[in-house]
Amino acid sequence: MKCVVNQKEFKKHLDLVSRAVATRPTHPILANLLLSAKDNQITLSGFDLSLGIRSQFTAEVEQEGEITLPAKLLTDIVARLPEGDVTIAFEFENEYDENPLVEIVSVTGGKFKIRGVKATEYPDLPLIDEGESLLLPKQELAKGLKSTLFSSSKDENKQVLTGVRIIGGEDSIEFASTDGHRLSVRKLEATVKPFGLTIPVNTLSELNSLLTSTESEEIELLVEDNLIMFKVESTVITSRILDGTYPNYHQLIPSNFSTEFNVDRYSLLNCLNRISVLATDKNNLIRFTLTDDNLKLTVTSGELGNAKESIKVDFSGSFEVGFNLKYLLEGLKSFDNKEITFHCNQPTQPVIITGMGNVEQTYLIMPVQLKD
Amino acid sequence: MKCVVNQKEFKKHLDLVSRAVATRPTHPILANLLLSAKDNQITLSGFDLSLGIRSQFTAEVEQEGEITLPAKLLTDIVARLPEGDVTIAFEFENEYDENPLVEIVSVTGGKFKIRGVKATEYPDLPLIDEGESLLLPKQELAKGLKSTLFSSSKDENKQVLTGVRIIGGEDSIEFASTDGHRLSVRKLEATVKPFGLTIPVNTLSELNSLLTSTESEEIELLVEDNLIMFKVESTVITSRILDGTYPNYHQLIPSNFSTEFNVDRYSLLNCLNRISVLATDKNNLIRFTLTDDNLKLTVTSGELGNAKESIKVDFSGSFEVGFNLKYLLEGLKSFDNKEITFHCNQPTQPVIITGMGNVEQTYLIMPVQLKD
Repeated sequence: MKCVVNQKEFKKHLDLVSRAVATRPTHPILANLLLSAKDNQITLSGFDLSLGIRSQFTAEVEQEGEITLPAKLLTDIVARLPEGDVTIAFEFENEYDENPLVEIVSVTGGKFKIRGVKATEYPDLPLIDEGESLLLPKQELAKGLKSTLFSSSKDENKQVLTGVRIIGGEDSIEFASTDGHRLSVRKLEATVKPFGLTIPVNTLSELNSLLTSTESEEIELLVEDNLIMFKVESTVITSRILDGTYPNYHQLIPSNFSTEFNVDRYSLLNCLNRISVLATDKNNLIRFTLTDDNLKLTVTSGELGNAKESIKVDFSGSFEVGFNLKYLLEGLKSFDNKEITFHCNQPTQPVIITGMGNVEQTYLIMPVQLKD
Repeated sequence: MKCVVNQKEFKKHLDLVSRAVATRPTHPILANLLLSAKDNQITLSGFDLSLGIRSQFTAEVEQEGEITLPAKLLTDIVARLPEGDVTIAFEFENEYDENPLVEIVSVTGGKFKIRGVKATEYPDLPLIDEGESLLLPKQELAKGLKSTLFSSSKDENKQVLTGVRIIGGEDSIEFASTDGHRLSVRKLEATVKPFGLTIPVNTLSELNSLLTSTESEEIELLVEDNLIMFKVESTVITSRILDGTYPNYHQLIPSNFSTEFNVDRYSLLNCLNRISVLATDKNNLIRFTLTDDNLKLTVTSGELGNAKESIKVDFSGSFEVGFNLKYLLEGLKSFDNKEITFHCNQPTQPVIITGMGNVEQTYLIMPVQLKD
């Protein structure tokens, strides 16, 4: 193999593909990425046996070939090379050679030889050539992911709850995720073919970071059996779908409330950030005390002391409810609205947060029982 | 106690003093800092029983008093408070009260109550009221520290070698440090009283960070018994001196050399940074191969591969020498010169690096034996 690539272009695609290379690989070859040179195209692939990323770019291919190389070492080398042309070349010494030394030479500085592993050792990425193809609108995809990526379960035993549920209707696309303590749902207007999929969060996180750098307004999604593949320009992300029935979350959301109040989201976030200093992993409770036109926030830590903040709200009467501060903060950050509405019933029943006068996004949070 | 401080000013001095508070204190009180309010001055003190920092600023003191407070928690709270006035107040509940709740209230948001410990529990900082006073020029101090802070020993058993040796002559100030593998010496022109001290590196590191923010051109140093104290504006840094005889390092520096060559320091640093990708903790050897007008740099890692760089140098003949890459890189970074000179004898004898045509700074490095 021999090819000449542009350092900047090479670095960009290496960074992308490296994200699918396991940091603690179960097998040595999984610490590598696959580099193929063919038809004046370089194809890089990373695969941790669950998530796969493949990315292509144009280069001058003098002699076709493919090889796998240690992802971290290659990325470190290329990141430090000066801008300009980089030549990548190797030859097998004989037919039994499985680990050729691959030469990486920058025109302006440095000549590296790193040990590769022949390409046939690398697992095949589960790519979809044919299958159901859907077009998803980028803006709505980005909004939906912002509202749901954080609230799925981190517990691998919880199966479908570790993913985000995405449902395409004729004129809408809905995103939902829950970890059992909170539920986030966002429904956006969009014209898509009907579908329903539960997709692993890490696959969607990678897709999410690609969305910010692409100019395409639509993202192609292919589905085949239990596999999915997203296409964003010359990059594809592939993974399995999460099997199993996703819980019927709509029925968890109450529709009648006895107590409602609006609050400025930025002011509330500022107060919560300040008093969160006194919260700890063990003691992460924030108390909301509502009296006429006033919302008092309290965090108490027996050992350290306590912290109090007050915000003006449009409310009359009295009401008290406690929340897990982390869940509340994460939820509030996922909104775009300036003002939000809290919808409550008894202090032990689910509380719903929505944008003020707006039900596009719904965040359900289970209150924490107050001891006194 | 009751006082009103400016949030920005309070934060600045808290950050300073917190650096002398132990991160893993041997006794709970050492996680605190001491706050005293008197004569419209706030004095903050941090002390880890070795290094002490005391800093003062003006405030409105309504009622004098002193208290110790958890340094990390206080710093976190004050950092998040909005700009403006902050009131600090507490009262002992009765004469047995050792842990009053201290109120910290921002005019624009938030009311915190944190548990303090009474001031009499806090160890006294070893301050020097009277003693020999010296004035050190700031610019020369900063240059000397840059050249020596990195090369002292990290091994607490090595006593004086964990510090930097500073010697004041009539018309010069000399800085030296060594860990047994390399030695760094910098001698600068200055008018100071004669003295000779070995000062712990962490004390000098704190002094070094203060130097960048002060406008004074001279730093006051007080010495009494085995204690020193630096005064930088309203801040003092205090610590012990390292006892014991500092090695006579001048005799380690050869004065005659059989091989010398000049090299551009930036080009060399660039090359070394690139090929250091292939160096590991276990294999940190860089090989210098000199031939006519060429310096070839090689790092070889049996497992990973190898890296080579070439630089043009003014040299005729042939010479080969190996270095610990980390020690070489650290040394080169400590120079200010554009071009440097390597002075060598046998490849097993100490190599000296100086600025080209300049002996203000000398870096001695022991070569690593090459196996082939």
